[in-house]
Amino acid sequence: MPTANADRVVANLRQLAEFGKYKTGIHRPSLTPPHLQSMTWLKGELEALGHKTVIDGIGNVFGFSQAKGRKVLSGSHLESQNHAGWLDGPLGVVYALEAARAIKADPAFADCGVDVGAWCDEEGHFGFFMGSRSACGELSEADIDKAFDRTNGRKMRDALAESGLTGRERVVVDPKQYVGYLEAHIEQGDWLEATEQKIGVVTSIVGIRQFRITFEGVQNHAGTTRMAIRKDAGLALARLAVDIDDRFPSLAGPRSVWTTGRITLDPGGHSIIPGGAEMLFQIRDADPAVLDRLEAALLEMIAAANAKGPCRVQTEALRKTIPAVMAEPFQAALDAAAEAFAPGKHERIPSGAGHDAQVFAQHMPAGMMFVPSIGGISHHWAENTSDEDIGIGAQVFVDAVARLLKGNQ
Amino acid sequence: MPTANADRVVANLRQLAEFGKYKTGIHRPSLTPPHLQSMTWLKGELEALGHKTVIDGIGNVFGFSQAKGRKVLSGSHLESQNHAGWLDGPLGVVYALEAARAIKADPAFADCGVDVGAWCDEEGHFGFFMGSRSACGELSEADIDKAFDRTNGRKMRDALAESGLTGRERVVVDPKQYVGYLEAHIEQGDWLEATEQKIGVVTSIVGIRQFRITFEGVQNHAGTTRMAIRKDAGLALARLAVDIDDRFPSLAGPRSVWTTGRITLDPGGHSIIPGGAEMLFQIRDADPAVLDRLEAALLEMIAAANAKGPCRVQTEALRKTIPAVMAEPFQAALDAAAEAFAPGKHERIPSGAGHDAQVFAQHMPAGMMFVPSIGGISHHWAENTSDEDIGIGAQVFVDAVARLLKGNQ
Repeated sequence: MPTANADRVVANLRQLAEFGKYKTGIHRPSLTPPHLQSMTWLKGELEALGHKTVIDGIGNVFGFSQAKGRKVLSGSHLESQNHAGWLDGPLGVVYALEAARAIKADPAFADCGVDVGAWCDEEGHFGFFMGSRSACGELSEADIDKAFDRTNGRKMRDALAESGLTGRERVVVDPKQYVGYLEAHIEQGDWLEATEQKIGVVTSIVGIRQFRITFEGVQNHAGTTRMAIRKDAGLALARLAVDIDDRFPSLAGPRSVWTTGRITLDPGGHSIIPGGAEMLFQIRDADPAVLDRLEAALLEMIAAANAKGPCRVQTEALRKTIPAVMAEPFQAALDAAAEAFAPGKHERIPSGAGHDAQVFAQHMPAGMMFVPSIGGISHHWAENTSDEDIGIGAQVFVDAVARLLKGNQ
Repeated sequence: MPTANADRVVANLRQLAEFGKYKTGIHRPSLTPPHLQSMTWLKGELEALGHKTVIDGIGNVFGFSQAKGRKVLSGSHLESQNHAGWLDGPLGVVYALEAARAIKADPAFADCGVDVGAWCDEEGHFGFFMGSRSACGELSEADIDKAFDRTNGRKMRDALAESGLTGRERVVVDPKQYVGYLEAHIEQGDWLEATEQKIGVVTSIVGIRQFRITFEGVQNHAGTTRMAIRKDAGLALARLAVDIDDRFPSLAGPRSVWTTGRITLDPGGHSIIPGGAEMLFQIRDADPAVLDRLEAALLEMIAAANAKGPCRVQTEALRKTIPAVMAEPFQAALDAAAEAFAPGKHERIPSGAGHDAQVFAQHMPAGMMFVPSIGGISHHWAENTSDEDIGIGAQVFVDAVARLLKGNQ
């Protein structure tokens, strides 16, 4: 039976955490030197395993097994959010690598293989799911042309050039070659920890609808402009944010979430009535009908705000990802593997965060597995998972891959 | 009768507008090279007039008339807001200079004089009313020690040293030497223009209470954190802003204004629930009782928000200026002068903006006069007043000074 080497998995993760180390986490944005170091490291490990490797024109790292039989595609991402955790992404990459090693090492799986991928920019420094969309043939050259780093404005074309990747082909995978795609990730929430479980078997990945909502009023002196004639863009924004939060609960599904993550007032002076305001707003749910209902309500509220005045409100859709249901055989394989190595300590749960698996799920059967996040902390350098839980997760993951390769026996 | 030279006034203002020229306005923050140039220019003009001049240790420019009889103190400020208008401040300084010239030139006023001041940092780059408070003996060395430029963090001590002002005494005026203080300014609102008037006789200057209100929630992933357990600091802020705007109108006076000028969410990522939020909020009114009532209501709302949760709300008072009533004889002198040179086109109005006159008003009788602002535009480089209105204002101002020197004859 293919077996994970838990010590090796933890050691590999600690090696990766040296690239862009920041406090107890990492700062490894897409296509920066530490990210390139992590890519080179992965390529080396895959070569050592005998995989055929390539770092392609979007910064995806591929390791193709030479096996001729059934194959699983597996991976995650190596870059991080700014000043974030060491496991968000790398855990799934190292589990995939470990699964490739364990399958290769087991004579009973001589014909089978695990192809490994590290998908560039899952964290969205330049866009959203640039790497996995490229690997699925969904990303155009024009998409790359217009992409830039939202932190510093660096064009993705320049970043690729500085990474020595200009002119390389972008590899597109052939879904027919695979049983499907399997990815592991930290939960990024506290459900598993709070319920003392070790494994989350993902049922679905939410769709995200993200909007930029802008408010146009009239900038003026905060002392000399009477309340009656003001067109305060900031106040119009606050009213919409509160209206949304009052109205959405009655329309939402049990797991719907909505967030105003950023608010900017223009010009932002303490004695100036804001003439402009902007909010970044997003809705997430696993059910497209719920997303449609919430988006329609948002647009109704914006229309009402425009009808009422005094500010003009406009909305721009920035991002619309499709919810993905995980394939039932993949969930079953994960259930069985989890029951074998963490009996009674696993549960089927939806994913509120987006993952590369949702891109692959549009092209082949896909599955996802979570391990616990300590305190539910995520997108922060303090993010962590115990070594013990990392080890249990690795073994469950390898076992699930083995079950899928053998037709979920 | 003392007469203003309207052409000279406009020419002087245009000369001043060359120092830090920006589009049709100026960018002349406190204690920057263009501000120092404007101070040197004023000192030169006052010397040419025979005034005893000094630039003191806070960057105030003084010109003392050598007359032994009745005196009026007059002035305004030379620095600007960032990228702002050419008249906000300089108009009052040049009117004071012109009044000093006109009184000196009139043999009937041989014993009388106008002392001229340009008060540093009325616009609050480093604090609030630093120059006029210093001239009134209200500013301590410790106040200067802790002051820094809110745009770039430059310490006021460093700015004074770089301006060559370290070690100079700070001049404190003796209120007993003066009939009082008179200041002219652009209206910074559209009331005079909308009502086709030329002169506003200021009845009172508002007091300002300014607060930093901070909201402490819990930062978390916008996808994986259920709505029920969120502590969204941004949403708590929006709710308070809306609550204020719903409740204040029933408590406010007819001219009360309140403004949230700046909102910041921390960290401000599109997929991160804000763990922190901050708003800059201010209230203005000419009546201390109204200010007290509104502040009490604000504190009640904050206490209620804290009692309800889920975020912790704290408030810090940043600024508290006292409303100032303009002296009746000064209003009467301005009424009479305006009726002489702009018959039927003047009105008594309160000032919603703060001015150095409110500092002087705590120490001697004070008055203020407004000229129209085109379109009410203020704190923006497009701010303007027609040359004709500048000329009318100059004559009314000089005449009002003459009336005050002669005991409002």
